[in-house]
Amino acid sequence: MQAQLIALDWGTSSLRAYKLGPAGAVLEQRSLACGIMHLPIEPRDIAGIYCTNGFELAFDTACGDWLDAQPGLPVIACGMVGSAQGWSEAAYRNTPVDVASLGQALHCVRSLRGVDVHIVPGVIEQVGLPNVMRGEETQVVGVLQGLGTQVLIGLPGSHSKWVEVIEGRITHFDTFMTGELFAVLSKHSILGRTQQPCDQFQAEAFDRGVQVALSKDGQRGVLSTLFSARTLGLTAELSPDQQPDYLSGLLIGHELAGLPDHARHKPIILVGAAPLCARYQRALALCGFAHVSLAQEATERGLWQLAVAAGLTQPVTEA
Amino acid sequence: MQAQLIALDWGTSSLRAYKLGPAGAVLEQRSLACGIMHLPIEPRDIAGIYCTNGFELAFDTACGDWLDAQPGLPVIACGMVGSAQGWSEAAYRNTPVDVASLGQALHCVRSLRGVDVHIVPGVIEQVGLPNVMRGEETQVVGVLQGLGTQVLIGLPGSHSKWVEVIEGRITHFDTFMTGELFAVLSKHSILGRTQQPCDQFQAEAFDRGVQVALSKDGQRGVLSTLFSARTLGLTAELSPDQQPDYLSGLLIGHELAGLPDHARHKPIILVGAAPLCARYQRALALCGFAHVSLAQEATERGLWQLAVAAGLTQPVTEA
Repeated sequence: MQAQLIALDWGTSSLRAYKLGPAGAVLEQRSLACGIMHLPIEPRDIAGIYCTNGFELAFDTACGDWLDAQPGLPVIACGMVGSAQGWSEAAYRNTPVDVASLGQALHCVRSLRGVDVHIVPGVIEQVGLPNVMRGEETQVVGVLQGLGTQVLIGLPGSHSKWVEVIEGRITHFDTFMTGELFAVLSKHSILGRTQQPCDQFQAEAFDRGVQVALSKDGQRGVLSTLFSARTLGLTAELSPDQQPDYLSGLLIGHELAGLPDHARHKPIILVGAAPLCARYQRALALCGFAHVSLAQEATERGLWQLAVAAGLTQPVTEA
Repeated sequence: MQAQLIALDWGTSSLRAYKLGPAGAVLEQRSLACGIMHLPIEPRDIAGIYCTNGFELAFDTACGDWLDAQPGLPVIACGMVGSAQGWSEAAYRNTPVDVASLGQALHCVRSLRGVDVHIVPGVIEQVGLPNVMRGEETQVVGVLQGLGTQVLIGLPGSHSKWVEVIEGRITHFDTFMTGELFAVLSKHSILGRTQQPCDQFQAEAFDRGVQVALSKDGQRGVLSTLFSARTLGLTAELSPDQQPDYLSGLLIGHELAGLPDHARHKPIILVGAAPLCARYQRALALCGFAHVSLAQEATERGLWQLAVAAGLTQPVTEA
């Protein structure tokens, strides 16, 4: 089937490339460890030119053969590739921002082979503490279709985002460093020393962590409850293989306790890796959030829709 | 001057040895990098016996010559040396605990040279989330003399403790992993990447961090405000050399925000390293805590008083 668009989800540590066909159907996809902090360094010829630029090399590795086969294919990309440390900086758009309008604000960088790469700008909030996203705005576009006028979109990860959308506009968002904190505490703090990794999800320990975060003890904040991941081990209430999931539940519980009260009454959509979304879904239920659903393929759908909005491709192929 | 007691403050990473004279005066002191996780490994003869035990080797390095000179000197020790990973486990005492009674509960381990080392037990709280301390109970003993009936003792550090004391009894305490979190985030997280260490204390950035923790944004919790240490750099509101002290103020502010309301009306005593106590004193003032003072030499005084209570030495030397 003829491709219509190349869509790149290009973050800090990885690069996912999608070849999309009519109506945005995924014809082929690839995942490379070529994030902007892990670019290739081996120079080679691209389009007859000796190339040392890591972004060009990664781009060519990700989709050079697709472009060889169909040289006219448009290319769209989102994520940290548009940051100050990326290929070319796509300036942030301020909140509140109509996400559909992002398609009119793509930032263009011309690759060595003469193909334009259209980069989706990130979003910045400058009311109160500043907050930024790159890539998540595209996922928001990808999940919004067919939803009500007010939703809260949760994007769990190293830096979880919670995005409030009202009538297609991102009005506010928060970032929680939950995933990264879990990783550095497990790897580098005293809490990791007594943890034992476990293949099986320790549901009871996870739930206990969530509940501690929601309890009166939890009101003292995560700096205080963290130590319980150690002391509950000392008192033999948590076994070493339960400690990682206890810590996971504790941190996710504190994240959810930090959501605004009105979040409780909004439909919530979770976007992200399935095992992580399952943890959040479980924790949200324990916190009493009622309307939670999961979104699939948010990134590739979002990139497709923004490319359509930008006129890079046609929403429906004519017969 | 004749010594009366050897007092050891023996923690995870370091070992401080004090030779105390009449009325607990410090005659000599030493600091060794021989904490229980960093014991010597080179075997040698001690008291004519070939020794491979790291605790014995560290003990001999710390005060073997003092004992050679005065073989009958009593020895008291506090800290992680009495933990399950220590030289010999001194079982925890439960809260509420009269700190003066700890002198009657010393745990004894006989060293190779035949000298008894008397270890102060730690304290455990098992109401609600469990909490433990080892070493801080001795510092509490050291600062309590001459104070009112109700005080709150703050012991900032890797694992800050806040200890409520009523009429000489530890009634409750909390642990905040503030110092360790600051260290792992600075060294291993994305926040460290844009930080630039600075010799000079960045007061404005520190105060801003404290104020963010106390603000409406701070109520979402530290998982959320942490990201501002990055975004305020992106928006050029914090320079790289201001970021470490901003993060320090932010974490200390969240710790203080987690103290109970009644803490605001109690006399607060800070115990610990002077530069760190100065940060806490500054942050406490920003938080509106009124009665804050600093204690000196808490550990050596506490060890002295417990040794007196145990009958290991005399409170006042008779002429």
